[in-house]
Amino acid sequence: MLDINIKGTIPKNMEERGLNILSDNLGEIENILNQRKMPKKGLSDEKIELLLNFLANMDTDKDPKAIRVGEREARISSEIHKKLSSNFCHGIGRSGNLVDPQPKAPGASAMYALTNKILESFLKNLNVNVNALATPVSTGMSIALCLSALKRGFLVENSKMDKDTKITTKQYSKYDGANVVIYPYASHKSPIKSTSFVGMRMRFVETKLSDKDDCVEIPVEDIISATEKELKDGKNPVILSTLTFFPPRRSDDVEEISKYCLENNIPHIINGAYAIQNHKYLDKLKKALKYRVDAIVSSTDKNLMTPIGGGIIYSKDKNFLKEVSLTYPGRASATPIVNTFVSLLSMGMDKYTYLMKEQVKNKNLLDELLVELANKTENKKLDVDSPIASCITTKKDPIDVSAKLYNLRVTGPRGIKTTDHFGNCYMQDYKYNYVVMNASIGVKETDVINAVNKLSKVI
Amino acid sequence: MLDINIKGTIPKNMEERGLNILSDNLGEIENILNQRKMPKKGLSDEKIELLLNFLANMDTDKDPKAIRVGEREARISSEIHKKLSSNFCHGIGRSGNLVDPQPKAPGASAMYALTNKILESFLKNLNVNVNALATPVSTGMSIALCLSALKRGFLVENSKMDKDTKITTKQYSKYDGANVVIYPYASHKSPIKSTSFVGMRMRFVETKLSDKDDCVEIPVEDIISATEKELKDGKNPVILSTLTFFPPRRSDDVEEISKYCLENNIPHIINGAYAIQNHKYLDKLKKALKYRVDAIVSSTDKNLMTPIGGGIIYSKDKNFLKEVSLTYPGRASATPIVNTFVSLLSMGMDKYTYLMKEQVKNKNLLDELLVELANKTENKKLDVDSPIASCITTKKDPIDVSAKLYNLRVTGPRGIKTTDHFGNCYMQDYKYNYVVMNASIGVKETDVINAVNKLSKVI
Amino acid sequence: MLDINIKGTIPKNMEERGLNILSDNLGEIENILNQRKMPKKGLSDEKIELLLNFLANMDTDKDPKAIRVGEREARISSEIHKKLSSNFCHGIGRSGNLVDPQPKAPGASAMYALTNKILESFLKNLNVNVNALATPVSTGMSIALCLSALKRGFLVENSKMDKDTKITTKQYSKYDGANVVIYPYASHKSPIKSTSFVGMRMRFVETKLSDKDDCVEIPVEDIISATEKELKDGKNPVILSTLTFFPPRRSDDVEEISKYCLENNIPHIINGAYAIQNHKYLDKLKKALKYRVDAIVSSTDKNLMTPIGGGIIYSKDKNFLKEVSLTYPGRASATPIVNTFVSLLSMGMDKYTYLMKEQVKNKNLLDELLVELANKTENKKLDVDSPIASCITTKKDPIDVSAKLYNLRVTGPRGIKTTDHFGNCYMQDYKYNYVVMNASIGVKETDVINAVNKLSKVI
Amino acid sequence: MLDINIKGTIPKNMEERGLNILSDNLGEIENILNQRKMPKKGLSDEKIELLLNFLANMDTDKDPKAIRVGEREARISSEIHKKLSSNFCHGIGRSGNLVDPQPKAPGASAMYALTNKILESFLKNLNVNVNALATPVSTGMSIALCLSALKRGFLVENSKMDKDTKITTKQYSKYDGANVVIYPYASHKSPIKSTSFVGMRMRFVETKLSDKDDCVEIPVEDIISATEKELKDGKNPVILSTLTFFPPRRSDDVEEISKYCLENNIPHIINGAYAIQNHKYLDKLKKALKYRVDAIVSSTDKNLMTPIGGGIIYSKDKNFLKEVSLTYPGRASATPIVNTFVSLLSMGMDKYTYLMKEQVKNKNLLDELLVELANKTENKKLDVDSPIASCITTKKDPIDVSAKLYNLRVTGPRGIKTTDHFGNCYMQDYKYNYVVMNASIGVKETDVINAVNKLSKVI
Repeated sequence: MLDINIKGTIPKNMEERGLNILSDNLGEIENILNQRKMPKKGLSDEKIELLLNFLANMDTDKDPKAIRVGEREARISSEIHKKLSSNFCHGIGRSGNLVDPQPKAPGASAMYALTNKILESFLKNLNVNVNALATPVSTGMSIALCLSALKRGFLVENSKMDKDTKITTKQYSKYDGANVVIYPYASHKSPIKSTSFVGMRMRFVETKLSDKDDCVEIPVEDIISATEKELKDGKNPVILSTLTFFPPRRSDDVEEISKYCLENNIPHIINGAYAIQNHKYLDKLKKALKYRVDAIVSSTDKNLMTPIGGGIIYSKDKNFLKEVSLTYPGRASATPIVNTFVSLLSMGMDKYTYLMKEQVKNKNLLDELLVELANKTENKKLDVDSPIASCITTKKDPIDVSAKLYNLRVTGPRGIKTTDHFGNCYMQDYKYNYVVMNASIGVKETDVINAVNKLSKVI
Repeated sequence: MLDINIKGTIPKNMEERGLNILSDNLGEIENILNQRKMPKKGLSDEKIELLLNFLANMDTDKDPKAIRVGEREARISSEIHKKLSSNFCHGIGRSGNLVDPQPKAPGASAMYALTNKILESFLKNLNVNVNALATPVSTGMSIALCLSALKRGFLVENSKMDKDTKITTKQYSKYDGANVVIYPYASHKSPIKSTSFVGMRMRFVETKLSDKDDCVEIPVEDIISATEKELKDGKNPVILSTLTFFPPRRSDDVEEISKYCLENNIPHIINGAYAIQNHKYLDKLKKALKYRVDAIVSSTDKNLMTPIGGGIIYSKDKNFLKEVSLTYPGRASATPIVNTFVSLLSMGMDKYTYLMKEQVKNKNLLDELLVELANKTENKKLDVDSPIASCITTKKDPIDVSAKLYNLRVTGPRGIKTTDHFGNCYMQDYKYNYVVMNASIGVKETDVINAVNKLSKVI
Repeated sequence: MLDINIKGTIPKNMEERGLNILSDNLGEIENILNQRKMPKKGLSDEKIELLLNFLANMDTDKDPKAIRVGEREARISSEIHKKLSSNFCHGIGRSGNLVDPQPKAPGASAMYALTNKILESFLKNLNVNVNALATPVSTGMSIALCLSALKRGFLVENSKMDKDTKITTKQYSKYDGANVVIYPYASHKSPIKSTSFVGMRMRFVETKLSDKDDCVEIPVEDIISATEKELKDGKNPVILSTLTFFPPRRSDDVEEISKYCLENNIPHIINGAYAIQNHKYLDKLKKALKYRVDAIVSSTDKNLMTPIGGGIIYSKDKNFLKEVSLTYPGRASATPIVNTFVSLLSMGMDKYTYLMKEQVKNKNLLDELLVELANKTENKKLDVDSPIASCITTKKDPIDVSAKLYNLRVTGPRGIKTTDHFGNCYMQDYKYNYVVMNASIGVKETDVINAVNKLSKVI
Repeated sequence: MLDINIKGTIPKNMEERGLNILSDNLGEIENILNQRKMPKKGLSDEKIELLLNFLANMDTDKDPKAIRVGEREARISSEIHKKLSSNFCHGIGRSGNLVDPQPKAPGASAMYALTNKILESFLKNLNVNVNALATPVSTGMSIALCLSALKRGFLVENSKMDKDTKITTKQYSKYDGANVVIYPYASHKSPIKSTSFVGMRMRFVETKLSDKDDCVEIPVEDIISATEKELKDGKNPVILSTLTFFPPRRSDDVEEISKYCLENNIPHIINGAYAIQNHKYLDKLKKALKYRVDAIVSSTDKNLMTPIGGGIIYSKDKNFLKEVSLTYPGRASATPIVNTFVSLLSMGMDKYTYLMKEQVKNKNLLDELLVELANKTENKKLDVDSPIASCITTKKDPIDVSAKLYNLRVTGPRGIKTTDHFGNCYMQDYKYNYVVMNASIGVKETDVINAVNKLSKVI
């Protein structure tokens, strides 16, 4: 592909050394292309950009011999556009299928395919064996893609194993399309908007106060009974459960819901916006994946530290992901996909594993400091159930507290009043006024320490 | 805001000169911020990047004093992400309203507001007086946003003027939400997918062969009668008309449709994917805008030469644009908006006007060359009606012809067989086998000449 | 060298197309490496950067396997350094020989060798058949390099052809080293400083007023007689002649000086700071090169439009260039060499030829406008002899005129008083007060027009 | 200077927050301009580039209103040139004075002045109270600048204090110019070439073997007697002493030499190529600076981790630095100065102090590992005297050993034979065959460990 001829410019032994070094450098790029896996050690930015450069130079708008008379030829009006799109000016997708190769963009198409492969290897490294689809839209719109796919109806492959003979038979049944979303309530606007966006009705299942701790939760029985009611009414329900949300809202019991869904042939989407960063969440996902999970939706910015704009949809069901990909109307910006590609290659498994450990350490630190602060101030660190966020009660107006923190340049804390039913996801008054703080992936120890310090000053 | 103190490093008169030059350079940036209009002369890439730099340095993830304990703090894992997002790592949008200012991202929010302002001034310069919304998704998904907004139903402001007293009274009527899309057929997959995506039914109106030229067209009466039928069935129809498509499909008569829609209170969306680049299209839009047009959807890549991924929705109805903005589930990548911002500032009106003129010139050249070729080869340049694209008949298999052109590195031509009903948008056999070629904005004279040359070799 | 494996990510035919496009793109880079000539058509910045990237990735500081325990390992403290040096952090040169390959920097060494090759092909295209050395220092210091080489003394190859037998014999004579520089006076500080820098004495030859036009000039006889005088005193003189300088100073008659130098075995350096941009200068060089020219020194910023900092030394005498290269104490920044490399590849011969023609056109325009202005204002366009610059007399104080022009943001004009002996290179009072303006390579038509306009306002 | 008007685009409180964040970000840049000192904490690359951007936008080639009719207008032929020069296309220096402000380049001139100020504050932080001059050339050429200045002769200020009255009188004596360089021998080609370059004679003082350790050294008496001899011959000698060189060559006793120079009015230049990185060297410099040191020359790449190409000349004698600056013939590339500027701002004192400590730690580790290896292999770690480099004897041919190390990708070790008089700086056979390794600033612990490992495999 590339003949670097420097013969005669420098002595033979130096030439060999130089070409060896270049070859070793290009070798890191070739490895990615050959193995299509998340590398153990991250690549340097230069190498990633070189790989992207090679891929972008396969698109027809880079063809030095091209004669371009289409109505869309990826012409650009500024060099800045190249940086913003990593020179994938043709975007991704074709005629309403996100993952379909685009003839004008062999490079972008290959880049997208690679991203999905590497994403799958990444999840596999975390012991989540699934197919994965990087999407060019955030969590909310990615949930919309899933719901829209379910709504349309399609053929479902049901492999059945005879218990006696152990012979598996492939069977197909037509799924007629969902028309109502069962939503164990969380005050997350995106899934609610997603449902409305794709023209479905949403049925909320109300939260209850836990009797063993301070959590707000939805018993699986309530979810089941809401679903059964819809079925009885002749509807096709889909359950949209929530794994990751601000405490005191407890994660839904995705394993039990998945069991029910498998047994009753109910589609099941899990909103796991920031689930990938912590093994407690991943363990729950792994258990749920044994039963029925049509898709899990996660955010690339929250888990992979990309700029906002990309999502990940993953599932054991490859066909369903194809259905999801087919719902997208038109083509899309390549940038969110490139962001995902860059994050995976840049961090490598070593860095990601390290960051996961740091997240746990910082969450523990946050808990310790909040307990200490609670003791000092006669407040209480709430007994909730989140590997990311913690709550502490406050005697002062929590809205006031978080406003003061904002002015002290602490970003992120949410102050919630007992009467803020949206904020605490609870339709009656909650037991406490409280403030939530997060130690999510990428947080620094100093952030945690300084945030609690500032908090101690305002409560 | 900025004190550049170089006192004493160089002689006073040089210091003054230096600061004056800097001030003049920064002045170009200040002008954009003060005037919020498409500049006459485009800005250099350096200036645009400096302006973007200032704006991005207002987001809280750039705050050197910030303590960050949210679950989403726009952390990134590689410096490459900064380039890909112009450092607007927090994206745009808030809680499911695209244009809502995001407290963590004052800079990105201001950038988005500016983009919309400049976009409006750009359209105004083209004599299209509308409100405008840059969207972070392409034409297809932008149409979905419009349809989804219509589907939900909302309050409509109907200002009524008393004919005698000349007093205007604000009135509101509830619009109950559309549930069927009347679609004068065009073989454009995106609008069809959009309709399905938002969970609406699409009713196609069939094309007919024109009796005065070679066009395929849909008489307005047919559109009206299809609409009336739905109304009679108690449905709430919305008309999705097409202004820009490959010939022989003629543009829908958007003016007449708009008149009908106004009189009958029917929402009307115009798909004007590449309408902005040519005054023939713009004139049609201006006429339609006198009556009822809820929104026009155009592409940023086709009209403004951005990389693929952004859209423009524009309308005289500010409230409807707000509804559209409210349908978006979650936040979105800032990049497509930045691309639009960059294109507008980079070209300036002078360059855009020049490019429009070049487009007309190149389309004329294409027509001349095709007539010449047709005469030489006993073919016919079709008598169709497009300011962008032209058709020539071919005796050879047109699929073959376009495949050969592809191998000769001509991108863009479409070869359509008489029997390709999807391709020619006509449900019966079309009169000719033909090849379509485009002279859209940004095309070069050499592209046109070389493409016809290659074509002459293969037909 | 590079295996881009995207097998299976996209359909086979797209894969082939993509790889072909990539291969064509990389092919432009390979061509440069294979041909080592100034390309006809310039390369895009992306391609040049990719080529530089490949070369820089051959240096040992990029070796992913390197273990680095030297006292100088090209470590850098900021990523910005990479941009500033095109990642050639090891610089160029080795142990006091500029062109010696540096074992730690195979890539930089190859880049430097390539630059010199391409530079030679560039000069050859301009019909100047010489060896060339790009230097990492400007004109002044490059002259110092030449003088220092002459001063040290070295073996000279004197090929002698027997007039009868036509047999050529290689002979070597020791050149003992120059110790005095004969300088036909020009008020150019750099050559004067160069002479002082390398510890030589400078003997000025005074200018005279021409009796046929308005030029200030040095008759060749005067140069010769000054040289003879030094020879008589037992000195080893070298003549440093000036080809390019502000009028009214006429170019030295480099052809006649070269003839004398050949006959009398006197070294001869030509200061041709901005000679390459215009064929009148080039023609004079070509004529001089038939006789004795040890080296010509030109600027890269003035001729090749690089940032300031590089020089070009060229000569038919390859050995002398090697001597020059050997005088440099230590290593040097790679950046000025990269600048030269970039300029040559970026412009290509087509662009350079075009710019040369534009220069001539703009100089003619400048002359016309100045004649016109002179007529209108009863001034005189001086009858001088420069293909770049023109002079017009002024009744007002010329210092004042040029100060006013400076304030009107006209950069470049020099206002010279009759009594400014340094400015006009004439030891007595010159005939006129005048202003000089330049139409050098890269000047724009609007610059010329606007400058004369502003001038007309102040005189 | 800059009015960022985003009024009305976002809510007032967000606007304030955004402008505050921007203001804090710009504040870091303003601080540098106001304080002109090495910051404690380094600036991010983005901030440094923004500061450079502001400065570069003061040069006249950036003036949007400029009319350019000079013969040198900093025109460039490629955008790449901007990166390579940080857009200081006019370079630095004016008419042969490096530090003179250049009227066409107010920004570059201010940048250079700032660099020198910050450099001085950096050295002051290291307790070296001197004036400093960043040069656009490496150590070798910087030494040439110093020697050339000395050679020319100039007025020297001799402040004399009357012992009784304590009144100080300013006096000037003319220094007639040095003509011979006394060089206590080190096998460093650059100073030798420098001397030749400026046209001076070099008188070597031979090394001796130490009788208390394994060092090769030059007794101060020998240096003095060589100097006296030249004085007696009517010459004007200058002593060029060496502080930093490969062991076994011991540093010259710069304190004693300085004492002698003060008492005898002999100019004294210290070659301290990589002296700044280690306090043992700095302490020696501080002691010497109490007496006569005209200038110390250090490398920016070795001490500040810039790409190769810049130097630092520092001295208590401000006037002498001015003389040095005045010797430079012509203008020069701005890049080496920008590199120095970037390094200083990028590291800040905290990082530099950290790196100095790491260097000491790694040198200790290198010593320990070599002692261990020596014991295991019956070799000897030489008893030499360097804070950077260590030597170990080898029974195998040291040339062979270092060649093998090179092939194992260990860069930096030098293998020296007893008979290699150039390598060991000793004119007779040295006691041992040995290999030298360096733990200089920026070296990594793994480099040291791996290098000794590889060494243990080959000896």
